[in-house]
Amino acid sequence: MQFSLKGALEVLDNTPQALDCLLSNLSHGWLQCNEGDRTWNSYEVIDHLIESEKHNWIPRLEAILHGDEHAPIPPFDRYAHLNKDTNNPIQQKLMDFKTLRAHNLSRLETIPSLESHLDAIGLHPVFGEVKLSELLSTWVVHDLTHIAQIVRVMAKRYQKDVGPWQAYLGILTNK
Amino acid sequence: MQFSLKGALEVLDNTPQALDCLLSNLSHGWLQCNEGDRTWNSYEVIDHLIESEKHNWIPRLEAILHGDEHAPIPPFDRYAHLNKDTNNPIQQKLMDFKTLRAHNLSRLETIPSLESHLDAIGLHPVFGEVKLSELLSTWVVHDLTHIAQIVRVMAKRYQKDVGPWQAYLGILTNK
Repeated sequence: MQFSLKGALEVLDNTPQALDCLLSNLSHGWLQCNEGDRTWNSYEVIDHLIESEKHNWIPRLEAILHGDEHAPIPPFDRYAHLNKDTNNPIQQKLMDFKTLRAHNLSRLETIPSLESHLDAIGLHPVFGEVKLSELLSTWVVHDLTHIAQIVRVMAKRYQKDVGPWQAYLGILTNK
Repeated sequence: MQFSLKGALEVLDNTPQALDCLLSNLSHGWLQCNEGDRTWNSYEVIDHLIESEKHNWIPRLEAILHGDEHAPIPPFDRYAHLNKDTNNPIQQKLMDFKTLRAHNLSRLETIPSLESHLDAIGLHPVFGEVKLSELLSTWVVHDLTHIAQIVRVMAKRYQKDVGPWQAYLGILTNK
């Protein structure tokens, strides 16, 4: 097991600023490109991260800590953000995400002896039993997944423009 | 063609700070993990980016702009950094990269009418004829490739720790 609460918090704490640095001062073309039908652009990825801060990690964490082991943890709709009005400029979205993340990390700090509850169990609607440490690990990997998605989508915008160098750039054929 | 000089410079300008935000304040475990034998950790990725700033983009750009169309552009050894002493702390490496990148972007600004030379041709040692716009596009995608690599390597550190959520996290099986 590589997970540690300290290590997880380090990454979770870095993500909002890293996204800010990646997406600031970019022209609209970089932000609105995607990988084709039913794929997300950077606005939509940040919307999804915002939605996750509101309705995924902390509600599930609290259900595992305080809920009935036999009651499912709250479901999370990974596509909910696509049905919401998301016309805010990217700076506003990034700021919203940063505020929510900071609030959620402060929330973690208020939990007495969180470290001693890492093996607490919840019932995931699809997977069945999951541990609190698995939820926290997933939060970290989820951040990294969506950073990877953003840079991959941006890279693919230049898929044809790189000419023969495409042969050296595996990111252009990843999903 | 999606490439524009302005758009390319936006991304190239963001990369050092984005890497700084991603990799600062992380414990050593995050920085020294890799994907197995003959794969790179984050120190090595930054070393490679430093090497590229020194010996890849600008020397090749200058060869295309000023060289003989029939003389190959300079080769670049993608593994050169692995044979150098790279024990600097990550903050030093990130600072070195940032300084080199700023210097190189300033260098681009001094080239008169760069925009009008985007179709200039050079001879790549493997690919044959390449255009200046393809080199600049590749510089951008190369940045994004290595950001994706860093977050993928970090994500894989928690591959087992996420438990059943692995099924939702494609990054864990990407290369």
